[in-house]
Amino acid sequence: MAVLPRYGDAVHGLGALNDVLRLQLGHRSVRKFGPRDVTEEELTALVAAAQSAPTSSNLQPWSVVAVRDPERKQRLAALAANQAFVAQAPLFLVWVADLGRARRLAARAGTEVAAADYLETTLIGFVDTALAAQNAVVAAHSLGLGSVFVGAVRNHPDEVAVELALPPHTVATFGLAVGTPDPTERAGVKPRLPQGAVLHREQYDAAVADAHIGAYDERLSAYNARFGLPGDWSGRVLARLQGPSSMAGRHRLRATLERLGLPSR
Amino acid sequence: MAVLPRYGDAVHGLGALNDVLRLQLGHRSVRKFGPRDVTEEELTALVAAAQSAPTSSNLQPWSVVAVRDPERKQRLAALAANQAFVAQAPLFLVWVADLGRARRLAARAGTEVAAADYLETTLIGFVDTALAAQNAVVAAHSLGLGSVFVGAVRNHPDEVAVELALPPHTVATFGLAVGTPDPTERAGVKPRLPQGAVLHREQYDAAVADAHIGAYDERLSAYNARFGLPGDWSGRVLARLQGPSSMAGRHRLRATLERLGLPSR
Repeated sequence: MAVLPRYGDAVHGLGALNDVLRLQLGHRSVRKFGPRDVTEEELTALVAAAQSAPTSSNLQPWSVVAVRDPERKQRLAALAANQAFVAQAPLFLVWVADLGRARRLAARAGTEVAAADYLETTLIGFVDTALAAQNAVVAAHSLGLGSVFVGAVRNHPDEVAVELALPPHTVATFGLAVGTPDPTERAGVKPRLPQGAVLHREQYDAAVADAHIGAYDERLSAYNARFGLPGDWSGRVLARLQGPSSMAGRHRLRATLERLGLPSR
Repeated sequence: MAVLPRYGDAVHGLGALNDVLRLQLGHRSVRKFGPRDVTEEELTALVAAAQSAPTSSNLQPWSVVAVRDPERKQRLAALAANQAFVAQAPLFLVWVADLGRARRLAARAGTEVAAADYLETTLIGFVDTALAAQNAVVAAHSLGLGSVFVGAVRNHPDEVAVELALPPHTVATFGLAVGTPDPTERAGVKPRLPQGAVLHREQYDAAVADAHIGAYDERLSAYNARFGLPGDWSGRVLARLQGPSSMAGRHRLRATLERLGLPSR
């Protein structure tokens, strides 16, 4: 029975294990990159993997902007909570929920796609973008590259749209900084909630699931302490979700989406 | 230069290729399953892979309900557009965007998580659920299992919530039918848009991207014809997004989310 750092203990052994699972279970976010560039062939592979993910009704409602220009990366870093690794990464991929393509098809055909006005369709855009991007994350890892998602591109979606010349009915969903991992980065495989906290059988049982949180709080406190960070999981979740003041401007996202042409009715 | 069925032509060769990429690029949805059950060990592996995906601020805002009971699968199939493979699959995973866990933590701590009221947080829930589920899809494939996403659990989210005893502030995002692929299923690797249609350099260029759609329409028409299906890609997108009448009730999702405790302000 293998010990999985993913859960921070030896409880969760895994009988079914192969190279793909080993890669997935060993994933960590990389925020410090070596000097080597990401090659064009690697970029092609990441996008091919992304496009191989499932997509609702084959709509393919996403695009991706590959940013390598140092000055543009710098400006995007400034818009994304001043996170230096956005500029430091050789490649910054901005994943775009894209209902613009379908809207342009409709305009050319002289018809309408009124379904694109609804929250359901915005959600399909975000979900399908996420499915694609996660495939790119796994592909990058398999090629020896590291990556980290950057949700902070939603702090200033209008300005990001201008920077990337995004057309109407599209929005930057999240960024993905990609590069070779710098081995000097202090980081580990972060333990997650025990499976019993997230996996339910037949029906959701909140009491059984939540009973695992105390042990996880202790485990994550110990993990965080290794990196000089205070706090347990519960406390960090409550702080992160406290209210608009903890959202870095993203409480305005609904209005911003409407302005960008995703009314999300 | 490898020929990729993913693009339906030999244009997109891939220099950077390994076993993980080969698995990803060969993905197809499986809608017909053999009799073998999905083992508990396999289920553990799928969930461990899912939990290894990145999650915004380590919030882990999702849960998954594993349904094996034949009668429950039958009822879920009926709610999900009567798609028989939902009941036929030995395992049906319902992926749940879960802000209930954080709300319950807040209630126990006597505090509030007002950020959970906003669309931004609903989107984090859906995105993080999707990242996790896509890792499960890849893990399943690596274990020789097939799967298909079922967005139709959003046709009747209230009824699905009752069936799975979902607590407030949670919603079924999509299902995933899992089992061993039945080799008699007639299905292939569906070609996607050429990379040039979705990958932009530095800035979005709609004219350059959209110029690829004509060739793709021809390619997908030919692919669909192999399975006796009419229509090209553009026509199917326009039909799918025509309006509320093409949404199987999902134009009401915003109101439903509010009722389920995800107000998405």
